[in-house]
Amino acid sequence: MDDPKREEIQAFFMGLQDRICAGLEELDGTGTFHEDKWERPEGGGGRSRVIEGQKIEKGGVNFSAVEGHLPERISKALNLAPTDFYATGVSIVLHPKNPHVPIIHMNVRYFETSVGKYWFGGGIDVTPHYIYDEDAIFFHKYLKEVGDKHDSGYYPHHKKWADDYFYIQHRKETRGIGGIFFDRLEADETHTKRDRFNYVKDVGNAFVTIYKKLVDQNQGKEFSEQEKDWQYHRRGRYVEFNLVWDKGTKFGLQTNGRIESILMSMPPEAKWTYNHAVAKDSPEQRTLDLLIKGIDWASK
Amino acid sequence: MDDPKREEIQAFFMGLQDRICAGLEELDGTGTFHEDKWERPEGGGGRSRVIEGQKIEKGGVNFSAVEGHLPERISKALNLAPTDFYATGVSIVLHPKNPHVPIIHMNVRYFETSVGKYWFGGGIDVTPHYIYDEDAIFFHKYLKEVGDKHDSGYYPHHKKWADDYFYIQHRKETRGIGGIFFDRLEADETHTKRDRFNYVKDVGNAFVTIYKKLVDQNQGKEFSEQEKDWQYHRRGRYVEFNLVWDKGTKFGLQTNGRIESILMSMPPEAKWTYNHAVAKDSPEQRTLDLLIKGIDWASK
Repeated sequence: MDDPKREEIQAFFMGLQDRICAGLEELDGTGTFHEDKWERPEGGGGRSRVIEGQKIEKGGVNFSAVEGHLPERISKALNLAPTDFYATGVSIVLHPKNPHVPIIHMNVRYFETSVGKYWFGGGIDVTPHYIYDEDAIFFHKYLKEVGDKHDSGYYPHHKKWADDYFYIQHRKETRGIGGIFFDRLEADETHTKRDRFNYVKDVGNAFVTIYKKLVDQNQGKEFSEQEKDWQYHRRGRYVEFNLVWDKGTKFGLQTNGRIESILMSMPPEAKWTYNHAVAKDSPEQRTLDLLIKGIDWASK
Repeated sequence: MDDPKREEIQAFFMGLQDRICAGLEELDGTGTFHEDKWERPEGGGGRSRVIEGQKIEKGGVNFSAVEGHLPERISKALNLAPTDFYATGVSIVLHPKNPHVPIIHMNVRYFETSVGKYWFGGGIDVTPHYIYDEDAIFFHKYLKEVGDKHDSGYYPHHKKWADDYFYIQHRKETRGIGGIFFDRLEADETHTKRDRFNYVKDVGNAFVTIYKKLVDQNQGKEFSEQEKDWQYHRRGRYVEFNLVWDKGTKFGLQTNGRIESILMSMPPEAKWTYNHAVAKDSPEQRTLDLLIKGIDWASK
């Protein structure tokens, strides 16, 4: 069998982190990544890399590969018998300086147990402070191309999954324009383990191309104090999603994960104003109006 | 029986909100409260009042009295048979402008079911950006006096409860210098319902005196950009506690509460920096060192 083993998958993720960091340094122009290597007392460790640049106000690109006994609470939640586990992946969140450039998040991951069960998961989603149709259309068309190369069912399924996952329930609004989200991809009748891995690789490899385009399309737009203020408020919503609803963040905070690596996703600065209001027919109002599920950007 | 009924309790809380708002406007000097009256579709409503002043950068004083059928998920969690419920209370969070003045939070509440079960709950806790011993000692001694007037067991019990409740588990630090927290106070062999109510009244009535003292002791201290920056980072921790661990906030967000009233507790502005470091032997480091459970401030 040609099934990829954990060593191959981990090596790909480490290389992916290297390539993404190199690509983002080039994109930013002045910022460079600072790395912290860390070890997990229970087994494994990671490389957390952070950047503060001229275009990326605060960004984190984290690689980890951890192992040990799976806490019973988690094995139960995952519907698994008691087992050891191994998990590896790359996680990214970038908060840009210019409010016309969106926040971007990506995660690709692999999980396996000592009793032969495994799966891939991941996703990319984009959170604009101001929604521009050309960005949303480019982003979703690109994700659809990546998916279609592997399975024409991937994009529609994983796009809907992202709409449902990146949803701020208490605000009744999506975190942004969505993207793709998937979990528990294992071999089945029509996909080998390597097929699944190849899809995850292409998702990871798409990241720099996607963000470069989103930066290039918007970096030249000037911004006002008022637009920066709006960005701080949107970042507040990002905080609300991550701390209240994001399963990955909650999982990390409740299982003694490395806090600084988990909370690399937090914005550098955020604001909350009681009953924050926006002007009628403003770009801010238009953005709020588009923070809903089910917009078919790829077909526009 | 002289047991207080919900009408009396609700009237006290409404009056308490009025008196606290008047006291805080006087304390601030320029800010005035803006009120939103709101109704809850399922029954009841409230009065949310917010202030932006010269000393209070952002503050909220909320009164509510709501009723309806208790969602099954909650009645189960509370170990109650299916029932209608009524709940009323006052909640406050104040974020001061001067980082030498602490954040303060208070909540007093009453809950009853249609099948005769009821209880009081509440608490006050203080979150300094810089811990000053004289503030902490005054605050805890004052709370002890309030408790001792009713039951010498209140302060030690409710102080420990606050240490455990206002704890940021993923940071392994307390939210601040604690205070008191209590829940499910009902009549027992040594306390009537009115006894419990009288304690809750005194806790509520203590609020303005306590905060006035904490403001007066610190408002004159000048502050630098660097100290303001530290304040923003401490507010980040406040956000983490409220969104990840605070049961009241989670309860509200998951039960379709009035979002703007629940999130009045959020700071106006907060910051996150990866691996944020403070100087050795600095006031910031001293503050971090004191964010632990079990400090007996009242005996100092």
